[in-house]
Amino acid sequence: MRFTLSDAQQSLVDKARWVAEECLEPRAAGYDAAACHTWESWNDLWKHGFLAISVPKPYGGLGADMLTYITVLDRLAYGCTNSTMTLHMHSIVMQVIASIGSSEQKEEFFPDVVDDGKLFGSWGSEPESRGGTRAGKRTVIAPLEGGYVVNGVKHFCTMAGAAHRYMVHCAMQGYMGVEAFQPVLVPADAPGIKIQGEWNPLGMRATVSPTVSFEDCIVDRSCLLGEPGEVLKMGVIEGFGLGYAAVYLGAAQRALDFTVEFCKTHQFDPDPAPMSSSVVVQRDVAAMTMELEAARQVLYHSAGLWESTDPAQRAVLAARAKYSATGAALSVTSTCLQTVGGRAALKRLPLERLYRDIRTATLMPPNVDRCLDLVGKSELDVTDP
Amino acid sequence: MRFTLSDAQQSLVDKARWVAEECLEPRAAGYDAAACHTWESWNDLWKHGFLAISVPKPYGGLGADMLTYITVLDRLAYGCTNSTMTLHMHSIVMQVIASIGSSEQKEEFFPDVVDDGKLFGSWGSEPESRGGTRAGKRTVIAPLEGGYVVNGVKHFCTMAGAAHRYMVHCAMQGYMGVEAFQPVLVPADAPGIKIQGEWNPLGMRATVSPTVSFEDCIVDRSCLLGEPGEVLKMGVIEGFGLGYAAVYLGAAQRALDFTVEFCKTHQFDPDPAPMSSSVVVQRDVAAMTMELEAARQVLYHSAGLWESTDPAQRAVLAARAKYSATGAALSVTSTCLQTVGGRAALKRLPLERLYRDIRTATLMPPNVDRCLDLVGKSELDVTDP
Amino acid sequence: MRFTLSDAQQSLVDKARWVAEECLEPRAAGYDAAACHTWESWNDLWKHGFLAISVPKPYGGLGADMLTYITVLDRLAYGCTNSTMTLHMHSIVMQVIASIGSSEQKEEFFPDVVDDGKLFGSWGSEPESRGGTRAGKRTVIAPLEGGYVVNGVKHFCTMAGAAHRYMVHCAMQGYMGVEAFQPVLVPADAPGIKIQGEWNPLGMRATVSPTVSFEDCIVDRSCLLGEPGEVLKMGVIEGFGLGYAAVYLGAAQRALDFTVEFCKTHQFDPDPAPMSSSVVVQRDVAAMTMELEAARQVLYHSAGLWESTDPAQRAVLAARAKYSATGAALSVTSTCLQTVGGRAALKRLPLERLYRDIRTATLMPPNVDRCLDLVGKSELDVTDP
Amino acid sequence: MRFTLSDAQQSLVDKARWVAEECLEPRAAGYDAAACHTWESWNDLWKHGFLAISVPKPYGGLGADMLTYITVLDRLAYGCTNSTMTLHMHSIVMQVIASIGSSEQKEEFFPDVVDDGKLFGSWGSEPESRGGTRAGKRTVIAPLEGGYVVNGVKHFCTMAGAAHRYMVHCAMQGYMGVEAFQPVLVPADAPGIKIQGEWNPLGMRATVSPTVSFEDCIVDRSCLLGEPGEVLKMGVIEGFGLGYAAVYLGAAQRALDFTVEFCKTHQFDPDPAPMSSSVVVQRDVAAMTMELEAARQVLYHSAGLWESTDPAQRAVLAARAKYSATGAALSVTSTCLQTVGGRAALKRLPLERLYRDIRTATLMPPNVDRCLDLVGKSELDVTDP
Repeated sequence: MRFTLSDAQQSLVDKARWVAEECLEPRAAGYDAAACHTWESWNDLWKHGFLAISVPKPYGGLGADMLTYITVLDRLAYGCTNSTMTLHMHSIVMQVIASIGSSEQKEEFFPDVVDDGKLFGSWGSEPESRGGTRAGKRTVIAPLEGGYVVNGVKHFCTMAGAAHRYMVHCAMQGYMGVEAFQPVLVPADAPGIKIQGEWNPLGMRATVSPTVSFEDCIVDRSCLLGEPGEVLKMGVIEGFGLGYAAVYLGAAQRALDFTVEFCKTHQFDPDPAPMSSSVVVQRDVAAMTMELEAARQVLYHSAGLWESTDPAQRAVLAARAKYSATGAALSVTSTCLQTVGGRAALKRLPLERLYRDIRTATLMPPNVDRCLDLVGKSELDVTDP
Repeated sequence: MRFTLSDAQQSLVDKARWVAEECLEPRAAGYDAAACHTWESWNDLWKHGFLAISVPKPYGGLGADMLTYITVLDRLAYGCTNSTMTLHMHSIVMQVIASIGSSEQKEEFFPDVVDDGKLFGSWGSEPESRGGTRAGKRTVIAPLEGGYVVNGVKHFCTMAGAAHRYMVHCAMQGYMGVEAFQPVLVPADAPGIKIQGEWNPLGMRATVSPTVSFEDCIVDRSCLLGEPGEVLKMGVIEGFGLGYAAVYLGAAQRALDFTVEFCKTHQFDPDPAPMSSSVVVQRDVAAMTMELEAARQVLYHSAGLWESTDPAQRAVLAARAKYSATGAALSVTSTCLQTVGGRAALKRLPLERLYRDIRTATLMPPNVDRCLDLVGKSELDVTDP
Repeated sequence: MRFTLSDAQQSLVDKARWVAEECLEPRAAGYDAAACHTWESWNDLWKHGFLAISVPKPYGGLGADMLTYITVLDRLAYGCTNSTMTLHMHSIVMQVIASIGSSEQKEEFFPDVVDDGKLFGSWGSEPESRGGTRAGKRTVIAPLEGGYVVNGVKHFCTMAGAAHRYMVHCAMQGYMGVEAFQPVLVPADAPGIKIQGEWNPLGMRATVSPTVSFEDCIVDRSCLLGEPGEVLKMGVIEGFGLGYAAVYLGAAQRALDFTVEFCKTHQFDPDPAPMSSSVVVQRDVAAMTMELEAARQVLYHSAGLWESTDPAQRAVLAARAKYSATGAALSVTSTCLQTVGGRAALKRLPLERLYRDIRTATLMPPNVDRCLDLVGKSELDVTDP
Repeated sequence: MRFTLSDAQQSLVDKARWVAEECLEPRAAGYDAAACHTWESWNDLWKHGFLAISVPKPYGGLGADMLTYITVLDRLAYGCTNSTMTLHMHSIVMQVIASIGSSEQKEEFFPDVVDDGKLFGSWGSEPESRGGTRAGKRTVIAPLEGGYVVNGVKHFCTMAGAAHRYMVHCAMQGYMGVEAFQPVLVPADAPGIKIQGEWNPLGMRATVSPTVSFEDCIVDRSCLLGEPGEVLKMGVIEGFGLGYAAVYLGAAQRALDFTVEFCKTHQFDPDPAPMSSSVVVQRDVAAMTMELEAARQVLYHSAGLWESTDPAQRAVLAARAKYSATGAALSVTSTCLQTVGGRAALKRLPLERLYRDIRTATLMPPNVDRCLDLVGKSELDVTDP
């Protein structure tokens, strides 16, 4: 099966490309250096409708299908990995609300985004767990008279201090394993939330993802999305991996396009012709092009199959896309530096930033090993525990 | 852009799968051992219409578009690389006739195939050239009173002694470079054709491709396809590389499917469970699956774009597909041997045959270096000399 | 620590090189085609002393240390993988006898080799086990009045029908796990030994390694080497992997040297100069040279440390060498085929044979996964179960 | 041939290890963050004799042979890539002075180092050239009444503003090609030297290597080392590549050792045991260990052969070592990040710094392509233009 974008979808993708190049990219290096929130770029994304890309149409959003969504992320990440990655996390929260939120929740939260440009974060990781584990969260939500109380520590809390609400992945007290998994839309101003320590990483610096603790943080019943364990049956949060893949490929494409342009326009002694006339450069560019294209075909194929795929199998679709994109993006961004040479290590060229962003972002769950695990078990009909 | 097969196309593909498994595969090992022509399998391919897959519908053929054609080859190669590879070469000759043949030639040659199951070979390589060179053929055709005369030596002459006619890639005397390129449909019983020496290769043994010499071989005007240089402008023989890619992937898929089944059904001391329960096996199967799937997506994407792509750019489409398929097929067939272990080296299992076939078939032009060359120059806007 | 060969050692190595090129190589292709025993080459190895390379000097052998031994194997395999591989297996049996054999056994068996050029095989693998498992052999030796009786099935029984005695890896009845491991030097003419089925593999064809069954095979007490479990404590049979590595590198070096010479001496249209003037060929040759050289340095380093290394750690030394040599030899032999091109698939050039030999020989235990397992556990201080 | 360190050499190496861990490492992260000169670490290197490692013994230095020198760099880089890299550049200048300096120059410059801990830089790169080109420098030195004048622009000028003198690679006016190559020991306070712009790179940040211009910079005759073209015949500056390789391996070893220790001591939900018990971690650690060890064997082999190798062939020795070390170090530092996971991207762990340093330092000439070029041409007996 293969898939085509409609004119409307294509025009959205074209707009994403324009926003990426005209609005996002000029700020990307500055955000990286400052390791700050990407406020202006979020504002542009909102103005052009992209903050609501996963908000259903009846609520004023774009209600994009997965293929359109992924294509848009790919184009946006070409301009700025950081604001696109945060948009993706926010959008998955929108998809969760659309999937298991109550009517009241939809009516409350979607207008925050559509009308006011608010952002929603998603905080899953914990210091004591390896990436992506869903069972046995140590951040616990417990019923309390008149509401609930959250206690625990999350790390890599993207948009901490900037989002309107954080979808905190909790374990519901009294439940076991994946059945306890409970997403909670904690308001940013809830009591007991405390941002801990600094945020000073290799790359993806403007995602601002410090450690955050919850101490007796009281939340209302209306903050709970679905029943415990429910969201894991919907095949929605599996979309995280698919979107990551799109971000990797958009960023790697940016690095490759920059390198191709550099090679066409730069000549160095003792060669009389531009770098593009070198057999070695031609081979490297060819190999990078094909590696990136192959990963992109895999990603779009997975995205095109998304809606018609059983929720239980979507983790495998996402794993395939993320695995291929991870390998391609790591390889391409590293080779771009090598092709351009020593100059590429200087921060006045974008390559070293993209290189750092990719090495950092590809560490996000499901990591390479987990992707291999998911796909291998699926091919061999082995049950994933 | 993405592409879908119609019901009719899909049903053809399904038939190809059936023919591959029921008719072709049972004979594949025997043909390999004997290094003989695949007569019975050609007969089955004819009976089910596949010998005429590239014969236009008005002449009684299937007239398949490139995407359907490639998908069929992929499925057929799953059963037998050798008969599928010869079918592919034959089919490209059909495409050349359809593209630049005269009405008289079409009316003469197509019924040979449709009605009588005749095969057409295509002989391009020469001992003094590196693979795929189009200019400067040393096999020369020269006008003579009442006809033409061919002199020269070709090697890797697939189906020598079995095909009805051989499309010999000649240089027309008096022309220079690519302008001299002249395909000639030499009848198998023309005088002066001599099969030289033995055919004893690593793999693709049943393609029977010995060296053949032409000494004052007289042919009729009606054997010449188009004007000198004309066929190179049509974007038809670029399809060779695309079909090779399909053969590689079909064969590699066979190796992988065999390996997956082996791992599910075999247990070895001291492990209590089948091989499929091993983390290492799961990872290797996952990596192979994804590598093959990525190459397949690239191939199908290239095939889907074929008809709408400028002839001059089709070489790049084919290079992308062949490069990706080459890497994937070499890697997958080698890893399958490693996964199954020492037993896999024995000829009673199909893996070592597929391994030999792939290493041999991937040497066909355009080779890996030429593919990189074509793609790199295209990306960097460098003119290919 | 680094190591130097003495003049005497170096002169032995030089002789090995001479024997490889003058005696072994001329017969290598013929042995491969016939899949027969390498009788004449064994005879040459005997005449030049190499059959006794691991026989201690007091018994008339060369008593070579590991570094010399490995260097000799590397040189010999340059001429013929098959006879060198069988020499290696035979030599490990000599090392086992030297290590745990009784005086009577040494006085009986060593002269068979030194004076009469007899060969000793070593049969470990069983159809129901994965490669290299030492515990739980299903071939059982049990005491009987006046002797012992062996029952079971071995496969990959190298030199079956040609060696004088076979060191069969048995489990001693009444013992458990590795404590039961009992090598037995079964005479070739013992009753109840039956060679089963055919031997028709991808490569290493002249090692003639069919399946062999033992049915109530009666042997004398004098055939048992050491006590049950004893040999596993000596760090001797770990040398199998080290010698395999030497064979891989010798064969791969032969492929590379052939390719380099081919590129220096062959020119193909339309290039005016020999292949060696191509940037792509230069790069491929460079990469192959360096990959092979790196693996050789690792191997020689492991060999140089052998005698001073605790027996329990020798498996790790061998795993390092075999892992590196496996990767290098697989890569180099495949790339040589690609560099030389389609011609390389023909059996009149040596490359396809070396390619088949390497893919086959590298499947021998410990395989790549087991090597990674051994080294990884050692580095991480994890006990190997 | 293989090589052993004497007790004296080994004790120097042991001291290097101690200095690396106790003196250099504690400051490495701070220097990286500040992108400043490594003054305190240079002082420690001086105190322990390492600033004079390449100063001949008669002048009070350590006069280390190449194998000892490389081993020391490897150990020092384990603690700090930046100060070790600058030490290496300084040491090559010492080797140049020892090789072609006059007695007067040796008596003037060596005491600066031995007694006063002064540093000497080496500036070769120019904005208009690709890395490592020796002919056609655009920085020109011309005779002038009473001295010489230097004009031109250098970039990647390591230790600019910190070294006592800079060995500037100039072209002598009136000479052509490599015959013009003239190293000039420009005093740091010479007139007309101007540090341009900022220094803000990906890694190797504390090597402080900005662009520097020379405008009518007048120098004395005593600043010129040797005759034009002379130094290129000595096989000394080829040592740059060898030392780079040592720095890469020392840094990569640090990353690997950190990762191994992390895996032994960290457990994450839902696994009950430390990371080291994971099959996947074991495999990754094994592969990294072996890749690093192979590169180290190649490096030490090259270093051991250095003094006995013809100067014209030393570039090939260095290329082999640098190529292998580059691949191993890039792969190992990237895989370490992946093994440790998302946490590894945080600057409080050393991994991301080592990762940045390696990607940056491996861009230094001769780059990967030039190494392949040198080795390939040497193997194929093709003259390097």
